[in-house]
Amino acid sequence: MVLRNPFVTVIVTGVPGVGKTTVLGKVAEMLESRGKRFLVVNFGDYMFSEASREGWVRHRDEMRHLPLRRQLQLQEMAARAIRIEGEKRLGEEGVLLVDTHAVIKTSTGFWPGLPENVVKELRPDSIVLVEAPPEVIHERQMRDRGRVRSDIGGVEGIRELLSFARSAAMASATLVAASVYIVENVEGRPEEAAARIVELIERLR
Amino acid sequence: MVLRNPFVTVIVTGVPGVGKTTVLGKVAEMLESRGKRFLVVNFGDYMFSEASREGWVRHRDEMRHLPLRRQLQLQEMAARAIRIEGEKRLGEEGVLLVDTHAVIKTSTGFWPGLPENVVKELRPDSIVLVEAPPEVIHERQMRDRGRVRSDIGGVEGIRELLSFARSAAMASATLVAASVYIVENVEGRPEEAAARIVELIERLR
Amino acid sequence: MVLRNPFVTVIVTGVPGVGKTTVLGKVAEMLESRGKRFLVVNFGDYMFSEASREGWVRHRDEMRHLPLRRQLQLQEMAARAIRIEGEKRLGEEGVLLVDTHAVIKTSTGFWPGLPENVVKELRPDSIVLVEAPPEVIHERQMRDRGRVRSDIGGVEGIRELLSFARSAAMASATLVAASVYIVENVEGRPEEAAARIVELIERLR
Repeated sequence: MVLRNPFVTVIVTGVPGVGKTTVLGKVAEMLESRGKRFLVVNFGDYMFSEASREGWVRHRDEMRHLPLRRQLQLQEMAARAIRIEGEKRLGEEGVLLVDTHAVIKTSTGFWPGLPENVVKELRPDSIVLVEAPPEVIHERQMRDRGRVRSDIGGVEGIRELLSFARSAAMASATLVAASVYIVENVEGRPEEAAARIVELIERLR
Repeated sequence: MVLRNPFVTVIVTGVPGVGKTTVLGKVAEMLESRGKRFLVVNFGDYMFSEASREGWVRHRDEMRHLPLRRQLQLQEMAARAIRIEGEKRLGEEGVLLVDTHAVIKTSTGFWPGLPENVVKELRPDSIVLVEAPPEVIHERQMRDRGRVRSDIGGVEGIRELLSFARSAAMASATLVAASVYIVENVEGRPEEAAARIVELIERLR
Repeated sequence: MVLRNPFVTVIVTGVPGVGKTTVLGKVAEMLESRGKRFLVVNFGDYMFSEASREGWVRHRDEMRHLPLRRQLQLQEMAARAIRIEGEKRLGEEGVLLVDTHAVIKTSTGFWPGLPENVVKELRPDSIVLVEAPPEVIHERQMRDRGRVRSDIGGVEGIRELLSFARSAAMASATLVAASVYIVENVEGRPEEAAARIVELIERLR
């Protein structure tokens, strides 16, 4: 059986610097102005709130110093908490948007952002990949050094990460019969990418 | 445990315009002339017959207007019906060939043609990708506008679709320990691609 | 729930000719000199010992002549035997290194080396891909014709195999929430690749 939530569930992913959060802000504005019932959640926020509740960390920065297996446990706990939140706050007409990554590059390799235990908890209808040319992402990362923490390895490193994100998204989508939806975030026009995501939401219904 | 049917099961996939149906026709002729017991089924036909039986549609064209979640349900129902048909019609010496797609491009994104719930129902020994150079596929699509419905986005779009088809096929194959078998359909020589598929069938036994 | 062994488990993969076995030899030396408890196992050896125990073969070469479905059964039996060996020989502080392939090219196609039934038995923390430029791998294969049996299809064939290895590794990693860790084996400097794997092991703890 295909696992689905009563509400439409869209996971929005993108590599650091692609402008995903700006795009999601525009999506929220558009859904708001249309009077849609929706919820945008940030996966990392839920990991932090689960970790705090368990008393494992006090500050967000402490999370990445937790043992890896504990981080993986948090990933699964966050997925479950997000689904429960959706069930509480959204009816059949609602839309859940989850802001996260298809793949995360760390010093221990490329981790799937949506491994089986997470994606089967979230039950998405679609996994969105917000993309941009590697050169553009690189420039944005250079401008925004404070916020983008990880060293992604220049334009070639970004190209590799984008490629792993695609195959990771497809592997996750295969587990839950979701679609993979590519959205280009053209420099300076995040509202276009947002409009394409709103279009997707309308069609998933 | 590795899931397998008593008979050899080969899923034959290819993007629209690659010439898959022609190749499968040749495969059928070759198996026929060798006196093999086999069954070639079209996945879409089974989706339609399941949908008709349920009274959800009367014409094939109505299928793509069904709600997406119903289409996904039909996909799973078709997979089960195909396996049952194989069990009825084929013994241990038989071969089941399933004509379908590794990935389907629609306005809601790239959908896996063989998500977990489908591929575990079909239980293939091998997933074949019939491929051709993007430029050749593009030309065939242009010649055959009536039949090939979807706008695939030019040569670049076809290249992207071929790439997603490969990663989707590998993701599906990983779930059932099947192989991914690449066959190039050289322009004007579908019998060569067919011969390679017949070779595969002989070796899977 | 994320499946994990009590000990750290790292699967080391690489295409024939990439120099994986040399690298793993260096990793063993480094772990030895640091007084680490570890176990390096070769997946093929375990398949052979399982096959011998069952009386299915007497010589290693006979294995590839077994029916394909029996080979798949052996693959799963080997995975279980390896995990049991790890449980017997390693405590929580130990490290299990499994020498195998992410994908295997044969006349019946590209077979996943870590299909669901195998990877969920092995329960890796990380899947390492030892890589090198296709041209370098090709040269090594040419020098070493005796040992490298399969015809991999020249530089283009190696490039394709490397690409399938990446998507297969990511598909397997998605099933068990493992990372995919890329290590380049630079010609003449296997100790650098080995050092990167030792670094990974330290960080996975």
